[in-house]
Amino acid sequence: MTTSRRAVLLLSGGMDSATTGAIASQAGFELYALSFRYGQRHAIELEAARRVASALGVARHVILNIDLAAFGGSALTTGSAVPKDRSLAAMDASVPVTYVPARNTIFLSFALGWGETLDASDLFIGANAVDYSGYPDCRPEFLRAFEAMAQLGTKMGTEGRAITIHAPLIRMTKGQIVQRGRELGVDFSLTRTCYDPNARGEACGRCDACLLRLKGFAEAGLRDPAPYALLS
Amino acid sequence: MTTSRRAVLLLSGGMDSATTGAIASQAGFELYALSFRYGQRHAIELEAARRVASALGVARHVILNIDLAAFGGSALTTGSAVPKDRSLAAMDASVPVTYVPARNTIFLSFALGWGETLDASDLFIGANAVDYSGYPDCRPEFLRAFEAMAQLGTKMGTEGRAITIHAPLIRMTKGQIVQRGRELGVDFSLTRTCYDPNARGEACGRCDACLLRLKGFAEAGLRDPAPYALLS
Repeated sequence: MTTSRRAVLLLSGGMDSATTGAIASQAGFELYALSFRYGQRHAIELEAARRVASALGVARHVILNIDLAAFGGSALTTGSAVPKDRSLAAMDASVPVTYVPARNTIFLSFALGWGETLDASDLFIGANAVDYSGYPDCRPEFLRAFEAMAQLGTKMGTEGRAITIHAPLIRMTKGQIVQRGRELGVDFSLTRTCYDPNARGEACGRCDACLLRLKGFAEAGLRDPAPYALLS
Repeated sequence: MTTSRRAVLLLSGGMDSATTGAIASQAGFELYALSFRYGQRHAIELEAARRVASALGVARHVILNIDLAAFGGSALTTGSAVPKDRSLAAMDASVPVTYVPARNTIFLSFALGWGETLDASDLFIGANAVDYSGYPDCRPEFLRAFEAMAQLGTKMGTEGRAITIHAPLIRMTKGQIVQRGRELGVDFSLTRTCYDPNARGEACGRCDACLLRLKGFAEAGLRDPAPYALLS
């Protein structure tokens, strides 16, 4: 423990935010975890977020209800088909249909607001620009622009407090994330990533998120402990 | 009508957003109005927002539920006392207790997300830097920073579409806003501004919002048609 400053952690229940939380915790931050119920088709990732928050020993975990489905516009909220079995090149070629308009902007805005009530100017997000290059709101230049905006748009920022968006995974491959998480003792069996799990909560193994996750475990030379419908 | 582009309008039910909507409408935009139920202590401003949306003839009016009260931190959501009878100098001296952490950041983020699903890159907000100098998220430099962030963080922005945050009232005095609204036919009797109305929906006449509104009508040489508990 080098410090006991508070930080807000965006926590999805996936392997990236779990690893991000472990990195923040090791850096000595007291964690306030924030998850969202935003019209998802299933509650499995929120159950995973609860398990991960508990494993991280966070000071508080808030799940906010926000109705992104009221706007439509994404496979993650409108019920459109999730693409399966795509190549990495195809994933990279365009903004994915699973892109949720302004999602990280909205999530970071709530993290910022909560941070201000907590006197916390450090926000952690598991954004990754290597395997999610198609998502504009996962890129370093977006995060830096959000930081600049947050500095100007908050009481703590205008009073001189430096607001920092930490995205420690931003340049890592999935394999490096798995390795780093393992070093920090992240229990990946608690995490869920799949865009299209079955009723038992088993991952499909074929959507973009599953394919990237499985690639990461393969690169790290480890077996993914999460349950899969097709591969277990 | 010079154009029929769509725009998202942040609509609170107060005189500023009503006037902003009238300006956007006159500029030829088809309006999509967005209001928030965010743990307010009363629904009076949302009723006003509905009336104003109807008077503006918006294409659609969405009221989103977001639970800012889960975070605490502001008189508008926590139930703390609203200050009364303050001088304009006192209002100017510091960030008001009615400041809601990151509120405009959160509101604009949702407007951005909805805008992206509507193919609308024009967002209108009734922010004003003259009479609300204490709110960091009402200043032009914040709005420009939000615009830069939105450009980088969205599909439409990264595809080259220019995202514009319109804040046509930003440099106006309250008196000028009243005059401009009147020229455009805004029915100010539909709008509500008070932070602390009574059970009949009558304004207190003494909170910061009422004092600024009354100053505006006085400067414009008009009588405020909204109902007041003490002054009618």
